[in-house]
Amino acid sequence: MKPWDKDGFIFFDGGMGTQLQKRIPERILPEEANIRYPEILEEIQREYVKAGADIITTNTFGANPYKLGKVGLDLETVVEAAVSIARRAAPDRLVALDIGPLGRMMEPTGEMTFEEAYDAFRRQVVAGAGAGCDLILIETMSDLQEARCAVLAAKENSDLPVFCTMTFDEKGHTLTGTDPRTMVAVLEGLGVDVLGVNCSLGPDKLLPIVKEVLDNASIPVMVQPNAGMPVYRDGQTHYDISKEHFAENLAIMADMGATILGGCCGTDASYIEKVREAVTGKAPVQRKEKAHTLICSYRKSFSMDEQVTIVSENVLPHGNKTLMEAFIREDYRKIVSKVRGAKNKGAHLVDLRTAGLPGKDETLLMVETIKNIQKSLDVPLMLESRNPQTLEAALRTYNGKAVVNGLDGSRKTMETLFPVVKKYGAAVVALTLDEDGPARTWQKRLSIAEKILKTAKKFELSPRDVIIDPMVLPVANGADAMDTIRAAAAIKEELGLKVLLGIGNVSFKMPERGLLDRTYLAMALSWGVDALLLNVEQEEMMQTIQAGLVLTGRDPGGSQYVLAAGSVPEARADLDEV
Amino acid sequence: MKPWDKDGFIFFDGGMGTQLQKRIPERILPEEANIRYPEILEEIQREYVKAGADIITTNTFGANPYKLGKVGLDLETVVEAAVSIARRAAPDRLVALDIGPLGRMMEPTGEMTFEEAYDAFRRQVVAGAGAGCDLILIETMSDLQEARCAVLAAKENSDLPVFCTMTFDEKGHTLTGTDPRTMVAVLEGLGVDVLGVNCSLGPDKLLPIVKEVLDNASIPVMVQPNAGMPVYRDGQTHYDISKEHFAENLAIMADMGATILGGCCGTDASYIEKVREAVTGKAPVQRKEKAHTLICSYRKSFSMDEQVTIVSENVLPHGNKTLMEAFIREDYRKIVSKVRGAKNKGAHLVDLRTAGLPGKDETLLMVETIKNIQKSLDVPLMLESRNPQTLEAALRTYNGKAVVNGLDGSRKTMETLFPVVKKYGAAVVALTLDEDGPARTWQKRLSIAEKILKTAKKFELSPRDVIIDPMVLPVANGADAMDTIRAAAAIKEELGLKVLLGIGNVSFKMPERGLLDRTYLAMALSWGVDALLLNVEQEEMMQTIQAGLVLTGRDPGGSQYVLAAGSVPEARADLDEV
Ligand SMILES: [Zn+2]
Ligand SMILES: [Zn+2]
Ligand SMILES: [Zn+2]
Repeated sequence: MKPWDKDGFIFFDGGMGTQLQKRIPERILPEEANIRYPEILEEIQREYVKAGADIITTNTFGANPYKLGKVGLDLETVVEAAVSIARRAAPDRLVALDIGPLGRMMEPTGEMTFEEAYDAFRRQVVAGAGAGCDLILIETMSDLQEARCAVLAAKENSDLPVFCTMTFDEKGHTLTGTDPRTMVAVLEGLGVDVLGVNCSLGPDKLLPIVKEVLDNASIPVMVQPNAGMPVYRDGQTHYDISKEHFAENLAIMADMGATILGGCCGTDASYIEKVREAVTGKAPVQRKEKAHTLICSYRKSFSMDEQVTIVSENVLPHGNKTLMEAFIREDYRKIVSKVRGAKNKGAHLVDLRTAGLPGKDETLLMVETIKNIQKSLDVPLMLESRNPQTLEAALRTYNGKAVVNGLDGSRKTMETLFPVVKKYGAAVVALTLDEDGPARTWQKRLSIAEKILKTAKKFELSPRDVIIDPMVLPVANGADAMDTIRAAAAIKEELGLKVLLGIGNVSFKMPERGLLDRTYLAMALSWGVDALLLNVEQEEMMQTIQAGLVLTGRDPGGSQYVLAAGSVPEARADLDEV
Repeated sequence: MKPWDKDGFIFFDGGMGTQLQKRIPERILPEEANIRYPEILEEIQREYVKAGADIITTNTFGANPYKLGKVGLDLETVVEAAVSIARRAAPDRLVALDIGPLGRMMEPTGEMTFEEAYDAFRRQVVAGAGAGCDLILIETMSDLQEARCAVLAAKENSDLPVFCTMTFDEKGHTLTGTDPRTMVAVLEGLGVDVLGVNCSLGPDKLLPIVKEVLDNASIPVMVQPNAGMPVYRDGQTHYDISKEHFAENLAIMADMGATILGGCCGTDASYIEKVREAVTGKAPVQRKEKAHTLICSYRKSFSMDEQVTIVSENVLPHGNKTLMEAFIREDYRKIVSKVRGAKNKGAHLVDLRTAGLPGKDETLLMVETIKNIQKSLDVPLMLESRNPQTLEAALRTYNGKAVVNGLDGSRKTMETLFPVVKKYGAAVVALTLDEDGPARTWQKRLSIAEKILKTAKKFELSPRDVIIDPMVLPVANGADAMDTIRAAAAIKEELGLKVLLGIGNVSFKMPERGLLDRTYLAMALSWGVDALLLNVEQEEMMQTIQAGLVLTGRDPGGSQYVLAAGSVPEARADLDEV
């Protein structure tokens, strides 16, 4: 068990950049200090050790090829020096390899590709690990995709624990719009050991952000706020929060559940000492595994526990000639416009599938489709494939926490796809289907779901991220539509898993499909089905959901319904004629 | 325990009228024989005793004021003589006072009022009981209303056991169109001790009719077929079925479950002897309490176990100005036309209520409305009132087995109304409402339902005839619509009672009521609600029921749905445009 997983507080150090500025007589890149002012560095770090820091951060925040290139320094040399200095300063503490943002914008906002960024982070990780650091701290991230890239580089190129913090503005967003809950969903999914918030603002203004992180995280949470806002006085930068005030606020965060405490810009050893004093005697809040299922794009997240999740089937190319042609021609303008349409109609999640299109490579098409959608839309995506290469590429590209669709209860499928899902921290939908074909009784549906859950646990997926699709089969073929609903209720009740139903299958080959679909939809809602795959362009389906939310108490008193009613045609012929 | 309730066969005697014709040298009214040929009568009855009959029937089939009046005989004198003769002939057997039809058609087919018929039957019953008969046999009835009238007269004017049989044609209907199942529902409800089939046809042709009676009856079933069809030969009436063939067929009926066996026209003592021989050594079929809930008009019946019951709210005057005026003006043409409309739209049951109409007497209006509806329509009715006088009058008038609506779980209501419901053998709907007001949680709904069931049992109602309305309350007032549905499921599951929901209440004071109503309807169907009170003129509600029947497996494979689809507007916009 790592120290941060234990019952107790862990203290990080405080600011380094601001300390260097004060003590170094010239204006240099902070990372140059590793070569030119190792004694000053070591002195600062010794002060943090003395103040009680358990983890000392290397002076490598900007030690990446882009920044070092500008001053003609070699990355590996700088990182090795930095780790050695920290180790000397803190022989009996942990040394964290510091990795900050690369200082260039990634696609789609900027020009830097995922692969370029990955390569830069990889070099830092390899150098740091080689130099013997104890863990990797990816910090001050303001672009979720860059954070993802750094975390993947850290995990794929070392076995070291990975901590990751991001910075937020006063509205609670990172530079690229990610909110704290979305950050938690994504970073936890990627398997970081600790996550949190650093830099950003003074600790008082960070309180609501830290609260949101703590409300959603199941892993240890760290905070490293600035000492308030910078103020220029006497030609120097000062920070406006005293160490006492700083420590008070960190004690509040500790009471809320943060267990790893430190400082960022403007803090020095005296701040860390005060923080230690402030939490002395406090019992850390017991961490709880959060049960909710979070899904998100790079900035938009929702919890499947707080709403009925509407999944659009409208961008699936099969059965829609125009759309299929758009995929084949790679007409992304058209595809993205279809996704936008689904989002505007009320889809919380849009299902994508690129397999089986004549002459097209499933993987390339999936990756390009995701990129194009995420360029302009923030609706979360469901990625449907049974091909592990496609899934790996899609999930690597997808900036957020996706839902993977396409699994089932057959051994081969699970063993091939679960590792990919686990690695990228996606949620997954699995059909109650195995080597014996689709389950046709609720008992069989339940038993396949149980097998799926067991296997998912073996691959270390969290049960909250396992969604079962108990398979709606066509009544025209004699299927028992209620059996699927009963199975859904049993899977929820007995296994505690979420369930998704593909509503439209029920009416396959029947006349008046809309009537059957919306009637079945109402039934499914009343039995507590969590997610519905459906045609969101069918107005009556969406209206049925609005009504269903009122009737199942998710729109108490119907206030949303009343608001929406203006746009819905009146359907009741009242009793006023004999 | 009466002999017919025990485990064994009971034998009735055979024909009397045909025997008298053979032995009396002149053409007289058969009942005149009680005065003029007592020895011949006694001889015939002694033969039946010798043949093994356990019950000997008095020669009083036509001993009613209308028939006796024509020949100037006094009813009481004739009945007393007949009972004395039978008692002499069969001192150690049971004597059944025979009551046949009055020979005049009752309203609405004929002119005889219920009260006139009742008075004639009452005189027979009082005379027979006074003369010391052991039971009353009402037989050869071909009009259900006349049978009801005779049974009520028997039960209200004596404490004697009442047997009642009706006659059917080859299509399985009585003269006025009643089928065997309807007869069973009505006569069992009225509390007869034994019911069955007599006369009609030869025993072979009666087999399917007797089967239908046995499939539906919970009380002992008797059969007294003719010895086949009459043929005129040598100036005399003969019957074409031999005693051996007759006995063979009665043995089949015994195997099917009939336990009280005898003969009608054309049978003599030798037939009864053969029947006895034919069933000797047979073990009677164990009688089972039937669990189904039958509802009927005078000729149309349905089982609530075989279908979702649709109850029309369209003839309730409140909230419909035109209809209310029609009730106030007693414009029965308009009211009946509204009932016809509801029936044609698919209502299985039409709810009626006449309380609270300005200047109108609830009872008179209810009785006249029932009479007018039953004059031309055979749709079963739900009679809604909390007034015991109104209910008594309504149920006395109603020709069939009605559903009474208007009860609840409050002690006073139950104690006032259950006796009336029990007496007339109606089913009953009771709200989960008591002295504390309407239940608002499913646990409370369930507990009031349990109290209702317990009280109903105390008043000897069968649980199958107790239907609970767990009260849909308006979501606009903050009601939890799913709680009512969950209560319905719990009441079915834990108490085994049927449940009815008044769907439209859910949307009270909301916009887009139709959308909420049909969504709620679909939900209710999926939870197994048995009966739905709704506006059958709302096309979309009825379509939702059609779809719901497919989805809940009551229209397997959707064959009915596909047939109906021709008349339903297409609602699905298929996915064919990007
Ligand atoms: Zn900072
Ligand atoms: Zn910092
Ligand atoms: Zn007869």
